[in-house]
Amino acid sequence: MAILNFLFGSPLATTDERAERIGPTAGIPIFGLDALSSAAYGPEAALTLLIPLGAAGVAYILPISISIIVLLSIVFFSYRQTIETYPGGGGSYTVARANLGVFPGLLAAAALMIDYILVVAVGISAGVGALVSAAPGLQPHTLLLCLAILAAVTLVNLRGVRETGIVFLVPTYLFVGTLLIAIAIGLVKTLSSGGHPVPVVTLPPAPPALAAVSVWLLLKAFASGCTAMTGVEAVSNGVKAFREPTAENARRTLGVIIALLILMLAGIAYLVRAYGIAATDPGAPGYQSVLAMLVAAVAGKGLFYYVTIGSILLVLALSANTAFADFPRLCKTISHDGFLPRSFGSRGRRLVYSQGVYVLAALAAVLLIVFGGVTDRLIPLFAVGAFLAFTLSQAGMVFHWKRIGGGGARRSMLVNGLGAVATAVTVVVVLVAKFLDGAWITLLLVPGLLAVMIAVRRQYHHVRMNVGCQSPLELDTFKAPLVLVPLDHWNKIAKRALTFALTISPDVTALHIDSGERTTYLREEWYGFVDQPVLQLGMAPPKLVILPSPYRFVITPIVDYVLELAQKNPSRQIAVVIPEVVERRWYYHMLHNQRGTELKSMLYFKGNGRIIVVNVPWYVEGD
Amino acid sequence: MAILNFLFGSPLATTDERAERIGPTAGIPIFGLDALSSAAYGPEAALTLLIPLGAAGVAYILPISISIIVLLSIVFFSYRQTIETYPGGGGSYTVARANLGVFPGLLAAAALMIDYILVVAVGISAGVGALVSAAPGLQPHTLLLCLAILAAVTLVNLRGVRETGIVFLVPTYLFVGTLLIAIAIGLVKTLSSGGHPVPVVTLPPAPPALAAVSVWLLLKAFASGCTAMTGVEAVSNGVKAFREPTAENARRTLGVIIALLILMLAGIAYLVRAYGIAATDPGAPGYQSVLAMLVAAVAGKGLFYYVTIGSILLVLALSANTAFADFPRLCKTISHDGFLPRSFGSRGRRLVYSQGVYVLAALAAVLLIVFGGVTDRLIPLFAVGAFLAFTLSQAGMVFHWKRIGGGGARRSMLVNGLGAVATAVTVVVVLVAKFLDGAWITLLLVPGLLAVMIAVRRQYHHVRMNVGCQSPLELDTFKAPLVLVPLDHWNKIAKRALTFALTISPDVTALHIDSGERTTYLREEWYGFVDQPVLQLGMAPPKLVILPSPYRFVITPIVDYVLELAQKNPSRQIAVVIPEVVERRWYYHMLHNQRGTELKSMLYFKGNGRIIVVNVPWYVEGD
Repeated sequence: MAILNFLFGSPLATTDERAERIGPTAGIPIFGLDALSSAAYGPEAALTLLIPLGAAGVAYILPISISIIVLLSIVFFSYRQTIETYPGGGGSYTVARANLGVFPGLLAAAALMIDYILVVAVGISAGVGALVSAAPGLQPHTLLLCLAILAAVTLVNLRGVRETGIVFLVPTYLFVGTLLIAIAIGLVKTLSSGGHPVPVVTLPPAPPALAAVSVWLLLKAFASGCTAMTGVEAVSNGVKAFREPTAENARRTLGVIIALLILMLAGIAYLVRAYGIAATDPGAPGYQSVLAMLVAAVAGKGLFYYVTIGSILLVLALSANTAFADFPRLCKTISHDGFLPRSFGSRGRRLVYSQGVYVLAALAAVLLIVFGGVTDRLIPLFAVGAFLAFTLSQAGMVFHWKRIGGGGARRSMLVNGLGAVATAVTVVVVLVAKFLDGAWITLLLVPGLLAVMIAVRRQYHHVRMNVGCQSPLELDTFKAPLVLVPLDHWNKIAKRALTFALTISPDVTALHIDSGERTTYLREEWYGFVDQPVLQLGMAPPKLVILPSPYRFVITPIVDYVLELAQKNPSRQIAVVIPEVVERRWYYHMLHNQRGTELKSMLYFKGNGRIIVVNVPWYVEGD
Repeated sequence: MAILNFLFGSPLATTDERAERIGPTAGIPIFGLDALSSAAYGPEAALTLLIPLGAAGVAYILPISISIIVLLSIVFFSYRQTIETYPGGGGSYTVARANLGVFPGLLAAAALMIDYILVVAVGISAGVGALVSAAPGLQPHTLLLCLAILAAVTLVNLRGVRETGIVFLVPTYLFVGTLLIAIAIGLVKTLSSGGHPVPVVTLPPAPPALAAVSVWLLLKAFASGCTAMTGVEAVSNGVKAFREPTAENARRTLGVIIALLILMLAGIAYLVRAYGIAATDPGAPGYQSVLAMLVAAVAGKGLFYYVTIGSILLVLALSANTAFADFPRLCKTISHDGFLPRSFGSRGRRLVYSQGVYVLAALAAVLLIVFGGVTDRLIPLFAVGAFLAFTLSQAGMVFHWKRIGGGGARRSMLVNGLGAVATAVTVVVVLVAKFLDGAWITLLLVPGLLAVMIAVRRQYHHVRMNVGCQSPLELDTFKAPLVLVPLDHWNKIAKRALTFALTISPDVTALHIDSGERTTYLREEWYGFVDQPVLQLGMAPPKLVILPSPYRFVITPIVDYVLELAQKNPSRQIAVVIPEVVERRWYYHMLHNQRGTELKSMLYFKGNGRIIVVNVPWYVEGD
């Protein structure tokens, strides 16, 4: 266990969990990280779609960013109300389930789960994108870097992170700080040069214009840019974590986060236009992220550049971390309601819902591999889930106000209604604009996840109905089991298995697969090694049954024999004793037992409740 | 099992395996595929290294190809002798082990295993390279295509392929045929145009010259080009498969294969130079494989082009298939000698050594993912293993002749000696030239594999020594076990487990983790449900022990209790009855049992031979 302790830390007791209450200063990094870091990929996602327009395309970033900022403001006012109404934490699942019903709740849950998986994949791939901009030699290893960071984040999360740690504080403020400084410098340079600043570092030339502008293209760019809004709902999930006055503090935190995000989005859009920064082809050699080019153009490739790139990488990796904190909790809540396997609800040694961490890591890895770790290819899948969750949450709030009734409620209903409609329209826009590029994947995944959740619930219900019982033990057909011991040749393992068999029943049969010479040996040894000692105790000695095997199979003849015996003795229990070699060192484990495991699976697969498997361990070191 | 039958075919009996004997016509595709298909990536690998020389670099392909052809001829004469000496099949492992000893044999085995893994990875990635040359839109999905083809090949091999099938015949001859036709057309055009043919399709421009030619660069290009020789040893492995006169047929087959390979290599080199075809940057958009450009330049992008590209893809995928046929057999031979886990030696339902197939597929997948499915990045790892195996095999032959002695033997010794020296020099050249590019990985893997094989052998020996026994059953401390039944609340599962426990021993204890309300219920029900019926049979009722759990752990308190009980009763066996929910549908399986499995592992990990686990199955459908 030493290695487990080293990697994951020693186990924690429930009482170790203190609910430290926080204020806005600590709340911004904790709950804002995800939202703020979206500024690192949102504008870039929009600009990448404008590549075909060449140098002229860059100008369209302004109207697109303004639309996103307007949408963001609407969502902000809408979520302020959610915070006030659900001071205990108003995640989309909770709000939709409480106000709209189980099915919309599950829909929101499915959307959120997909959103979290994408937060991880996009966060890491965008971080690596920043890294390879600064160190182009790493570009061919994009995917490998992504997977390595994913592994590191997963490991950290299996240890369990105290979210209040300085881990979040420093990079978040560093990221916001450096970016705002870069924007400020850029603004000054732009204004002092009459709107035409000269970049400090030569920028890659804008690509040739290959297409004329169209509404369709701008719609697609807007849909991609909307990814800048993901993560905005985090504060409303975690209201409980704030200190008194809870709702007030949470609202103030949300306000600052949104303000910072708007500032960054507006600044980036303005400077990208002023400097004429066109996106480069992602996933291809020579790729540089838009933010990396922007910072280089404004401040040159000096220390400041590398600090900024470093903070971007860190913030994006940590935004993946946010999903690692939220996804397992969401799964736990859902599994508590019976819609996901119960194992999601059991805490591991470090108070972490480990199962959720594994699943999130595995799914994010699949996404990264399938899309080669290139942010731009992941973006089309992204916004659908987030905005669907927004919509359901806001719609839930509308029904909440409707139930409450009264004058103030009507005003609140209007605000949430506007939010719901705006985000619903965005869902449709994103779905239509991005359908062929990947949004169809999300559209398949959401009902898929829904179906799984409903099937899980149904199955648990089925088992509970089946298993429930309010009757005492029935001991009328009470008799020792028929015991079968498969063995290959006479050794200590066979001896131990046979000894155990004889202690639990007088009806013991040894099964041996005919293997020529070895079988002759075994027959010869049997009387002296088995029959004699048992007869001395005055008991009936175990039978030795030799089974022929025309195929090389060892398993099948034994299974067939057991099944036949079960059929012939309908009232008896049958115990099959399977020896299991135990190696305390895991890497030796794979040298043994495959046959035993296979035999057990086959017996259970083809058997019934009367066929029981007994595993007699044998320790290699000797006991 | 229906789905298993559909995917993998119904099981086969040993007698189904007929050794159909073949002649050269069928032998060329079966044993030559791997060698012949190397023509599709060898020249390309050399040319890629010449990219920095610009248009001038292309000319150097001629001397490099000539060196490779000379080396190939030496190896040919050397292997002719191996075939004659080992008519039962003379793989490198066999020859090196028989003549040089166990350690060199294992070294050859490790080298071969790595070679096979790379054959799969390089074959598939080169095939996909040809595909994306013809359909550039697929270029971003390179890795995904590689993995999909790998999955398909793996599935086919789990079914088991009759190698003599038409599957191999058609694509091999199509590949050789189309390529030779293309070379012939190209030759005619070149000669009729006085050495300066005009390509039918515009070729990508040669890159600008970035470096001057150097011996080092040419050495590296030669080392990469040597990959064209991999697969040459296949005939000597499979001599047994030929019809009488066995050795004569095998030798003739090898001769034809080598002649075809030389023809293709020479033709490709000549035409690449004549048309001035420079390699394009692999892994980048716009990449086209050298053969694709050659065929397009000679014959245009018509039907012929697509048929050729199709046959290249097929032949390369099938060359991966050759490795899938050989690697599991090699592993089986080694596992038979005790140097690999025994499971490599057990045939699956389709007479296939499934374990080897899984391992090969997994390792090839890792390589493909790490190197992004780009052939050029895999090449540096490749030739080392193949040439090391060549060298050991030829060196083994030298010692064979030395042992035989006599005049003819001295001549034969010279031929094999020349082969051994030539390939040994090549190993060193490849290692030095490619060290930093990836050959170091192979250099680490070979001793790593060796260490694993030796450790496996030692462990098996250790277990055999430990387990062996020639003494009868010892029944002096013969007594029914103490039985423990962990249970959560009263239901049918608990009832079944308790019933079984009572039938095997009079000492039964039920263990329950304190969980508040549920515990109170259980205590109340216990008398009526358990004590009463047992007392009516005149037996002692089982004890109910409530275990406290300050952590949320369910497993630890139970394990601790069991261990303490074992310590207090040093002469007793202890049986822990763990219920196991059996779901016949695998996808429901994951809803249950995690705790039971975990409890069992912990008991075995911390326990000793006296602690035995009994799994009582409970079927969800009801029995």
